[in-house]
Amino acid sequence: MNHLEQLQAYLRAHDIDGLVVPSTDEYLSEFTREPYKRLEWATRFSGSTGMAIVLRDDAAIFVDGRYRLQAERETVGLAITVCDTGDAAQIEWLSGKREAVRTLGIDARVTSLNELARLERIGESCGIAVASLAANPIDAIWTDREDALSGSEIFDYALEFAGRSAAEKIDRIAAHLGDRGVAGHLVSDPEDVAWLLNVRTDDCRRLDRQGWQILPIPLTRAFVADDGRTIWFVDAARLAPALRERVAADGIVLREPEAIEPFLRQLPQGRYSANLGRTSAGHAALTRQAGALTDDPVVAHTRWRKTSQEIAAARPGYDKDGLATIRFLAWLHGSIGSQNISEMEAAARLHAFRGEDPAYRGPSMPFMSSAGPSAAMPHYVPKAETALRLNDHPLFLLDSGAQYLGCSTDNTLTTALGRPEARHVQAHTLVIKGWIALATAIFPVGTSSVQLDAIARQPLWDAGMDYRHGTGHGVGNYMNIHEGPHIRPQFDHPMIAEIDLGMIIANEPGLYRQGDFGIRVESHMAVVPGSFEGFLAFETLSALPIDPNLIDPTLLSAAELQWLQDYHRGLWGRYQDRLDEAAAAWLADWVAKFDAMRVAEAT
Amino acid sequence: MNHLEQLQAYLRAHDIDGLVVPSTDEYLSEFTREPYKRLEWATRFSGSTGMAIVLRDDAAIFVDGRYRLQAERETVGLAITVCDTGDAAQIEWLSGKREAVRTLGIDARVTSLNELARLERIGESCGIAVASLAANPIDAIWTDREDALSGSEIFDYALEFAGRSAAEKIDRIAAHLGDRGVAGHLVSDPEDVAWLLNVRTDDCRRLDRQGWQILPIPLTRAFVADDGRTIWFVDAARLAPALRERVAADGIVLREPEAIEPFLRQLPQGRYSANLGRTSAGHAALTRQAGALTDDPVVAHTRWRKTSQEIAAARPGYDKDGLATIRFLAWLHGSIGSQNISEMEAAARLHAFRGEDPAYRGPSMPFMSSAGPSAAMPHYVPKAETALRLNDHPLFLLDSGAQYLGCSTDNTLTTALGRPEARHVQAHTLVIKGWIALATAIFPVGTSSVQLDAIARQPLWDAGMDYRHGTGHGVGNYMNIHEGPHIRPQFDHPMIAEIDLGMIIANEPGLYRQGDFGIRVESHMAVVPGSFEGFLAFETLSALPIDPNLIDPTLLSAAELQWLQDYHRGLWGRYQDRLDEAAAAWLADWVAKFDAMRVAEAT
Repeated sequence: MNHLEQLQAYLRAHDIDGLVVPSTDEYLSEFTREPYKRLEWATRFSGSTGMAIVLRDDAAIFVDGRYRLQAERETVGLAITVCDTGDAAQIEWLSGKREAVRTLGIDARVTSLNELARLERIGESCGIAVASLAANPIDAIWTDREDALSGSEIFDYALEFAGRSAAEKIDRIAAHLGDRGVAGHLVSDPEDVAWLLNVRTDDCRRLDRQGWQILPIPLTRAFVADDGRTIWFVDAARLAPALRERVAADGIVLREPEAIEPFLRQLPQGRYSANLGRTSAGHAALTRQAGALTDDPVVAHTRWRKTSQEIAAARPGYDKDGLATIRFLAWLHGSIGSQNISEMEAAARLHAFRGEDPAYRGPSMPFMSSAGPSAAMPHYVPKAETALRLNDHPLFLLDSGAQYLGCSTDNTLTTALGRPEARHVQAHTLVIKGWIALATAIFPVGTSSVQLDAIARQPLWDAGMDYRHGTGHGVGNYMNIHEGPHIRPQFDHPMIAEIDLGMIIANEPGLYRQGDFGIRVESHMAVVPGSFEGFLAFETLSALPIDPNLIDPTLLSAAELQWLQDYHRGLWGRYQDRLDEAAAAWLADWVAKFDAMRVAEAT
Repeated sequence: MNHLEQLQAYLRAHDIDGLVVPSTDEYLSEFTREPYKRLEWATRFSGSTGMAIVLRDDAAIFVDGRYRLQAERETVGLAITVCDTGDAAQIEWLSGKREAVRTLGIDARVTSLNELARLERIGESCGIAVASLAANPIDAIWTDREDALSGSEIFDYALEFAGRSAAEKIDRIAAHLGDRGVAGHLVSDPEDVAWLLNVRTDDCRRLDRQGWQILPIPLTRAFVADDGRTIWFVDAARLAPALRERVAADGIVLREPEAIEPFLRQLPQGRYSANLGRTSAGHAALTRQAGALTDDPVVAHTRWRKTSQEIAAARPGYDKDGLATIRFLAWLHGSIGSQNISEMEAAARLHAFRGEDPAYRGPSMPFMSSAGPSAAMPHYVPKAETALRLNDHPLFLLDSGAQYLGCSTDNTLTTALGRPEARHVQAHTLVIKGWIALATAIFPVGTSSVQLDAIARQPLWDAGMDYRHGTGHGVGNYMNIHEGPHIRPQFDHPMIAEIDLGMIIANEPGLYRQGDFGIRVESHMAVVPGSFEGFLAFETLSALPIDPNLIDPTLLSAAELQWLQDYHRGLWGRYQDRLDEAAAAWLADWVAKFDAMRVAEAT
């Protein structure tokens, strides 16, 4: 019996109509760690995001467009239907099962309050109730697992990287609670906890079994009272000695992770708040027994706005990563004519270049090393047995990133290895025009992230092209490379927010042709004061060369070409003395190619 | 005793802590008619939108930025504080009154369900309850009033303008209800009713006492069941004979307006829907006694997407309005050197030019005729006693519109009467660049209105300028010139929606310098298929010349200048034979000035 059949047998034996199986874990993580990948256990689907509904004699898995093919491949041989994600698809599938299911079970520990509300709305549309199960059926079957990282050391994230002390951050949050008349705030998101308490781990040293990144943060929760008293629910044995001293000095109380539920049960009557999009329905329900629980993503929103010291502390990481990327590109262009290079080998080589610097603490994301048609799938990650040869395709795309103390990088380069065709050059030039337009945008304080999305798309739109992913996302420092705000088209997405000073945001337009090629260029930008009072602008932090062989200068404005020339001269000035002779000659050639370009005459 | 004091005495006498006084009427209209202007009665504030909170010994009025000065002027002598609109200002003011007010009273007839929810959230933040009053205290005091339009004739809006029969529209809505498993839909918004049933009035023949437009629609409600049975709550005596026959043939049941509440009270148990942003809290509460009431703006969203026949039926209106505007501009430029012209006289003259065509049925909005500093207030409407002379100011702005069967226009022209200064020319040229950028935008199906907002602002942003109003709004046909979607920066605004084929949307960037001058250019555009599969574009419907004396061609791209030249040659071709000699010579001069322009050389 496969796992899905085992689970369905359990449902029948225990009189459960059906079970919702999300990809999230007990911490509602974006990237779920090994022993909590219940969705993969039940369905074999190994993508980062998805959700299954398992009934006694039927099952469906709901994944977004980028995962459709992968889900179909991975679930071959299982009696499960692959569907699109979203309310409509779920309502359609469930509506047909009304006979078989009166109540859909969920695990309130791995379901956020907002997601539970969504499931209840869907249930209402289908005449199906949604109820919390006392225990997760998967956990009753899947017992042979352990979390290798649950005991990893947690260390003090030094003030030089954090910018502000934990005590100062806690004071600020407590004052905010006081202003709102809220007695306490449940910090449910481990990223919020890591930022608030200035703590990190080394868990990012490697990628996991499926090639996904592991964040350098402990999976823990905290609670801040309006007088600043703070409880951290963590295994105290994990704390490095220096951290133990510091949190004691800060007056932070340590409690066992398992103490959170009894703690919430015993909260005094009062008003409480939490980021409900990242708080489990179970914890929310416990808190509500003590009074009102309002949604307040204050910790995340404060975290997204980095101090000038945090921005300064991120710069060396971007600098080091630029050096590794340039050395990698020089190696790649110097080698591709004389040797076979697979997607896996290219990834390993960039990892090795990064690793020559002792500050490199590991990858911030999987190596999306993609030759030719691989790159048409925006989230493609190569596997050893199916990796393509770079030599066989004119374009190569590599999206990857590094963790450094103070900095999480995530950049994408697209380069021509064979002889690029006119359509490659046109598409890449249009992508670069959008990338420059966003990088050089000036906009008033109060501008929302969704407003900026079209700026990067317009050059593509004008040619009838577009890309089906966001244009950018906020970025943490030695943290998750995905945070808010998102620059994306969906105005009702929870990550749409006002752009504010100190945010670090990715700029990653692209263009994809299924089965053929993919183009994406990604850099990180800091939000800085604009040159006019009341305005903001971006400063590009990443140091990533653009391939001049993929640029048609007749499609550029004079200002765009000038920007590219200045940008590459800047790279040359910064790196020329740190490159060996071959790499320096290679970079000089690219810089010279930009300098030799001329725009078309005005008509 | 002034009205405010009378109201406060009533509150004291009847043991009411406080009353919320919105600007909306029982139909939650955007433009409230004379006898329902309770906010103006109580506070003297005559703007279109605002809200007061009146306590026994205190009062505040909350208005948006454009109305701040006006509210301060109009409330002189009243014991009322003028505050900004929005949650934060209301929470701040109310928090200080916690001692004086335990329960805030509302009139559930004039408060939408969404607004009630907002008030309850605000109350929760301040520890103040919100409760419906049995009767509105203002109505108990203000008894000498009548609605001159409540008996106006309602006529059949012919199929040639409506595009689809009422029966066809009802079938479509009923099918939608069936798909959703909803038993019936309450059509609360009179604009939705007028569209759904193909009915209109002539109420737009004049502006009201304060200069506000009156919509050519009856204030009525309807109910559509999932089998298509439709009840129209209307005074049957108002129906023109032909309409009476048609609705009888359509099987539409007529009931007295007052019958709506007993009807809702007697609804059978079931699931119902309504546009909750336009449904009174009172009606929503009655409906909920019969079962679930879900939010569904289906009628409005269908209404916004006009059929090709509706678009075709709108074209003659735009054509006629362009002719009147060109004749007005020619007259203005021919007269300003030799006679005094006030803001009121200019407005009257454009009204007269429009009126020479028998198809003109009245203004679609007040005449925002604004010389010099008047135009710095985006919603300025002149009054006879304070109107400025156009002769004294280099710039003149006129925002106005006309109702025609099939078409509601609303255009803004900015023209130089005196000698414009370089800063006027620069600002106007940047506004025009944004206006062209939006008019010529190509964007994929699914693009949201908020995404397009920055396209019109970017040329201003690049120079550190911006305007504090939306870039555009949907437009009805012989209806309200304001509908959805809005192209505006606020991503969480209820009028943000996907742009879709057949919508008519205003394009109105501007630039304002307080106490000095204002610039705005406004045209209407239809959403049409783009030149690429899966893409949409705009077609400018308005025929409005741009003042070449306010254009600096060195700030234009070659493509922008070409667009302006083609556009004005098009106006010449369309209108040359319909103008008298003087007006034709004047238009020829403007067209020639564009033709003579040259852009700056590329560097």
